[in-house]
Parts: sequence; C-alpha cells; structure tokens
Amino acid sequence: MAKNSGRRDFFRKTAALAGGAVAASAGAAPLPVPPSAQEPGRPIPEAMYGMPSKYEAHVARRRSDVLKNRQNWSDWSMTPLQHQPGIITPNGLVFERHHAGTPDIDPAKHRLAIHGLVKQPLAFAMDDLVRYPSVSRFHFHECSGNGLTDWLKPASSTVQQTHGLLSGVLWTGVPAATLLEEAGIDPRGKWVLFEGADASAHARSIPMEKVLDDALIVYAMNGERLRPENGYPVRAVIPGWEGNVSVKWLRRIKVSDQPWHLRSETARYTDPMPEGKWRQFSMVMECKSVITSPSGGQQLKGPGFYEITGLAWSGAGRIRAVDVSLDGGRNWREAMVEEPIMDKCLTRFKVGWTWDGAPAVLMSRAVDSTGYVQPAVQEIQKARAIAGFVQHHNGIQPWSVNAKGEVRNAIGQA
Amino acid sequence: MAKNSGRRDFFRKTAALAGGAVAASAGAAPLPVPPSAQEPGRPIPEAMYGMPSKYEAHVARRRSDVLKNRQNWSDWSMTPLQHQPGIITPNGLVFERHHAGTPDIDPAKHRLAIHGLVKQPLAFAMDDLVRYPSVSRFHFHECSGNGLTDWLKPASSTVQQTHGLLSGVLWTGVPAATLLEEAGIDPRGKWVLFEGADASAHARSIPMEKVLDDALIVYAMNGERLRPENGYPVRAVIPGWEGNVSVKWLRRIKVSDQPWHLRSETARYTDPMPEGKWRQFSMVMECKSVITSPSGGQQLKGPGFYEITGLAWSGAGRIRAVDVSLDGGRNWREAMVEEPIMDKCLTRFKVGWTWDGAPAVLMSRAVDSTGYVQPAVQEIQKARAIAGFVQHHNGIQPWSVNAKGEVRNAIGQA
Repeated sequence: MAKNSGRRDFFRKTAALAGGAVAASAGAAPLPVPPSAQEPGRPIPEAMYGMPSKYEAHVARRRSDVLKNRQNWSDWSMTPLQHQPGIITPNGLVFERHHAGTPDIDPAKHRLAIHGLVKQPLAFAMDDLVRYPSVSRFHFHECSGNGLTDWLKPASSTVQQTHGLLSGVLWTGVPAATLLEEAGIDPRGKWVLFEGADASAHARSIPMEKVLDDALIVYAMNGERLRPENGYPVRAVIPGWEGNVSVKWLRRIKVSDQPWHLRSETARYTDPMPEGKWRQFSMVMECKSVITSPSGGQQLKGPGFYEITGLAWSGAGRIRAVDVSLDGGRNWREAMVEEPIMDKCLTRFKVGWTWDGAPAVLMSRAVDSTGYVQPAVQEIQKARAIAGFVQHHNGIQPWSVNAKGEVRNAIGQA
Repeated sequence: MAKNSGRRDFFRKTAALAGGAVAASAGAAPLPVPPSAQEPGRPIPEAMYGMPSKYEAHVARRRSDVLKNRQNWSDWSMTPLQHQPGIITPNGLVFERHHAGTPDIDPAKHRLAIHGLVKQPLAFAMDDLVRYPSVSRFHFHECSGNGLTDWLKPASSTVQQTHGLLSGVLWTGVPAATLLEEAGIDPRGKWVLFEGADASAHARSIPMEKVLDDALIVYAMNGERLRPENGYPVRAVIPGWEGNVSVKWLRRIKVSDQPWHLRSETARYTDPMPEGKWRQFSMVMECKSVITSPSGGQQLKGPGFYEITGLAWSGAGRIRAVDVSLDGGRNWREAMVEEPIMDKCLTRFKVGWTWDGAPAVLMSRAVDSTGYVQPAVQEIQKARAIAGFVQHHNGIQPWSVNAKGEVRNAIGQA
C-alpha cells in the first residue's frame, strides 16, 4: 500500500514531463470517423485459437544473431524482451533451448517412470498425473548461457540477443515430492535424475533436498498445456535454477545415492575458475537485472520524458530493490518495483527519466532477499575465469545513449 | 506462509488417496526407448511465434452452443475454462465480445482523443501513449452476460458455455488519471465517455470517480500488444466492472457533467427488477465462483481421488474464502485458495475429493473482502426479476455427478 501511494506521487510528478511527448500531436482534437468505424469488422469463427495482429509480426522469437549453428538440432531461440511489458511471457514467445530439436510426443502414449532407490517403481500416464493435487506458481526461467556472448565487449545489439534466454511463466503441475512420496523414497536416495524423451536424452542430477523443496512436474504453462518446444506433454521445473536442469519431455525420474556426472555435468554446464579449475553443479541463477527499455537498437525520439523499465530476478528468493544509474554507475537511484513481487519470479522495475539530449549510460543493479547484490563483470572476474563463452553471466548490463538518441550495448565499456 | 504449510499438509493427506488413480498403470517400470528419442525433432526456424501442440486442437474459444446469431457481426466467443489451470488465460483463448466484428486498425494511423470538459483537448498517437509511465495489473475480465442462458434450468452443457465469458489477464497501460490530468479536468466533469473505433461505435459512460481510481488505458495483455479481437491497438480497462464498459479500439474519451444514456445504457446492459422497473448503471461484477473441474461434460473414471478446482473473483475486491459443497449445499468445507490473491483478479481454489461412486452435487460459494457472500439463484430472485436472458448472473453453479461418473449442469435442480 505504501508502494502504491508512492507510485501515485510518481505519476503526479512525471505526468507533466511526459506532456512534452504529447505536445507535438496535441491541439483541439479533430475527430474524423476512422475507416474502421465505417464497415463491419472480422466475424468470429466457430472455434478459434487467436493470434497477434499482423502489425506485430516483428515481435517474434529469434535465433542467435551472434552464434550460428552449422546444424539445426542443438539450437535456441530468444524472447523479445524489448517488446514484453509486465512479468509474463506469452507462450508463443517463451525462449527455446534443445539439444536435438523438438520431439513430437503423443500424450496418450507417453509414460513418466519413477524408479531407482524407491520402494515401488511407478509409471504414470498423463491422465493419471493430472489427477494429483496441483499447484500453479509464477517463476522466471533462464538458460545458464544467457549473455554468454557479451562479457567483456559487445557482440549482440539488442536485449533479445543479450538477455532473451529468459522468460516469465505461470507453471502448473504436481510437486515432485508428491510423486516421489507415492513411490516411497529409500533413505539412501540423495540425488534424483531427470531424463527427457528427446533424441539427445538430455538428463541432469538434482539433489534430493531441492527436489523435495520446490521442484514441480509440470504439464501446463500460462493457462494451457505445455507448448511442444517447452516440453509437451510433461517436464520438470526446478525453480530458480539454470534452465537446462528443468528437463523437458520428461520420461523418467531415477533416485540414487550420488550424482550421475553426465556429459551435461562435466563437459557442459560447468564454469571455468582461476588456475584451470572448473566449477560443477553451479545451478542457482544468481540475482540479476536488465533494462529492457531503452535498450540496444532502440532510438530515442529526442529530449524529453522516457520511462526506464526492466526486469529483475533471483534464483535465491525475491527481489528486494533495484537501483538504476543514468551515468554509467557513478550515481544510483532506487527504482519503483511493481507488485506482485514473488519468489524466484520476474519482477518489473521502473523509473522516470527526462533525457536532456546529452550522452548517457543506463544500467540497473538488483538486490535480492538474501542481501546479495548483482555484481559488475569486473567483480565476477575477481572470482571466476572469464574467457570465451562462459555461462552464468549475471553482471550489470550498461546501455549507452548517444546525442542522436541511439541506444547501444556498452558491456565492457562503462 | 501459514497457507503454504497448510498446503503441504494437504498434499501429505491426499497423496495416498491419489495413489488409487495411479495403481492401474503402476508396477516395475518398463522403460523402452520411445520413438521421440530415436531421431532428431523439429529444428527452430529463424523467427517464430509459437503455437500449441496439434494434440491440443480441442482447446479453443467457441461461440455459444445455445444462442446462435443470424448474422455474424454482433457475436461472442468463450474461453475453455475447463482446460485452463491457474489464473491467467492465454491470449489465444481470451473470450471475445463485439457488436460489429473485429476492426483492422493500423496503429501508426490511430489517434486517441481526449475532449469535452477539459482545459486542453489532446490527441495521442500510439508512440506518444506508450511513453507515459505504465502499470501492469492482473485483473479478471467478465462479460455481464456471462451465464445468461442458465438461470433457472440447464441450457448449456460445459463450463465454457456457462461461464466462458470470463478470462484472467495481466493488463499493461497508462492510468486514465494520468492522461486526464494531462488534459486538465474541468471541475464540472463528473462522467467520462469511452468510445470505440469499431463500426458499432460502442460507447459507455463511466463515473469520474471510478476513472480516476483505477481505470487504465491499455495497449498490452499478458506480455504483448493487445490482440485484434481484444482491442488492438488501445482499449479501456475498468477493473472489476462488466466487460463491455472496458471499451475496445478506443478512439475518444470525453468528459461531461452527466452520463450519456446511450442505447448501451438504456435498451442494453440494464437489469429487470420487480414491478417492471429496470436497474441502470449496474456495472460492478459481484463476487462469484465456479468449479471448472469436474464440470459439465466431463467424465469421471470411476471412484477414487479427484482434485476439485475452480475460479473465484469479485469486482469489489479480493477473494477472502471459497467454500465447496459435495452434497448440493447441505454441507460446506473451506477450499484451499492459491496465492497470489490479488484485487479484482481470478483466484484459484482447490479441494481434494475421494469419490465413492455415489451420485453427488458439487458447488462452490465465494466470499470477498467486503464480506459479500456469493448467493444462490433463489436469493437473487428475491431482489431481481429473472425472466429471459438476464445479465449479472453471479449465482452458485451446481454440477451433478451420476453413478456413471457423468458430470452435468444442475442449475435450478440443486
């Protein structure tokens, strides 16, 4: 409530500034009857699943502009965060990442098995699974490779390319704990394998403690069944952890007394550290934020009022605060953070800005409920080895604005 | 937090019951390699807006099964609530209602005018509008005609047909107050006209007090620009009030000292009362709930555990509690209400049920933060005249389950 009344004050203060943007087209309003009001529009078909306006065709997932694959099966597409308001990504725009393409799985034939160190192995048909007590939870979903092309100098131009392996989803499913308790966990069971039914048989080992805490076996996203590319008909969701551990097209859950040390846990999804060491099982996505507007590739229309807005999130909890700098990190002001602020969920921040036409460098810095502060890349470099396409990039992202109003990726330059 | 631990207990209690559903397909798990794991799947195209699985083609908006229009332009489509988990409706399934079809409006040419009792008439291009400080808010959206075919006896078979003029949306836009303050409100201004750019020139008069309180001028829904059928490129959203006052394809906002008494406020969107009187400007959608599963047209697969789940909402505030009856209203138990519980927003409730195979009548009853209790139709009849297709039906919805497990609409019969 205190936040809301602060917000009201914020409007009062900024509305007059925003007027500058409107004055150009203001005046005694001419009200010609538009063409749309002169003839009936499109009627409703008998049954329909709707699509966006043809005028929004530029809003689409896109593959990497920087890393082009030689073959198409291990690939990813990125969410156009510059076009996404709020904290939910429409399902048609949720990013994809898979190692052997999107499989075609008939839900009537699919089975999810639970085996290993359990008292009673089980196999669930989808019709069985959806009868269990369900939960729906808002969580961010981020690939550990988000930002890997842009550590020390700019490679990508837009926020879709720098940060678009990130989406916000309302997941619906059954707690993994419910299904494991149904099978009966052997006391020796400390690690849990999740394996997909895709051609890469992608699999990961997750500690039992995390699985019992908040892992979900998910069949729906944002109010409908999973999309094929996001795991249809069933997937794991491991809240706040790197996206690839939330195994899609889930076909088995196996309980063991130790991790599997799969290729995806040794050759991949590990992080280089100083002195040639590699960090393994670094699965929590640490606190991070990015300004989505103004962002790379956008063009300001001259001096005047702009709303700076972006997203903040943390795999360790809730967002406590977001600071924004307009001068490359010399001075910071606290942004307004929009309710609801949920655990391990995208959080929207906003701050009003009257641009005077001089060059500026915009950046954001988030703090989570554990007190962890999003670091600059230089700080990350003190603890880790940054060379090549390194994962887990949660460094501060600067965007530069030049005197022409052109916004550019300024990573490594601010 | 108390709610969450209660939820955990709920799982512990019900999981064993749910086991009944799984036993049929349980056993030592056979793990044949599925066809999907034997060859690469679909690669990612260069740019793409995703669509649901082909196996989910039955999940679509549908026109009324009961009222068939003779012409197609004044029509509606309904949300398949029986297939929607959580509290968000995917944009492709958000219900439609329009009086002259969906217009095709080029956002680059569209203007929104503010005039009448204001100090400075203004006209906003879309590019101007989106620069104002924005807000994103989760709200339910419901047509006042939702349920009008099913007051005293069953006419519709499914919850899509009885309650599907209802959706849950994260709206993004500019507070109407911001734009009106920009134009400067004349102190005589007490009512505000919103008029659409469609061929019906649909318009409504809204009290200034409500407009300044929480009305939004909206350009995005669920993380992307409005869909054409839901008002692209800009619409009003009047939270908690009947859907038709949230005028779509908005082209002008006019301030006056009195309401307009338009056809949509005299011949339509009024409610018959006893002694031949009619109630006008009854725009708040009162507290309501419905069980979405099990619901009409569904088939239980024999005795055993089922999760009863549904939606509750109120135009007057938040949902405080939802009670569920399994015996046609003789006994009630309190359902679990899932967080987050937001103002004027869909709220999901759940309760475990072990069906013994005997006939049952399931119903839900919501209470909102004002203390208002959702009434039975018989109670509504004491205050209003129910004859024909009467609007504002927030009565309790019963679903009967027979010994075969067939679920049917039991309105007027329980």
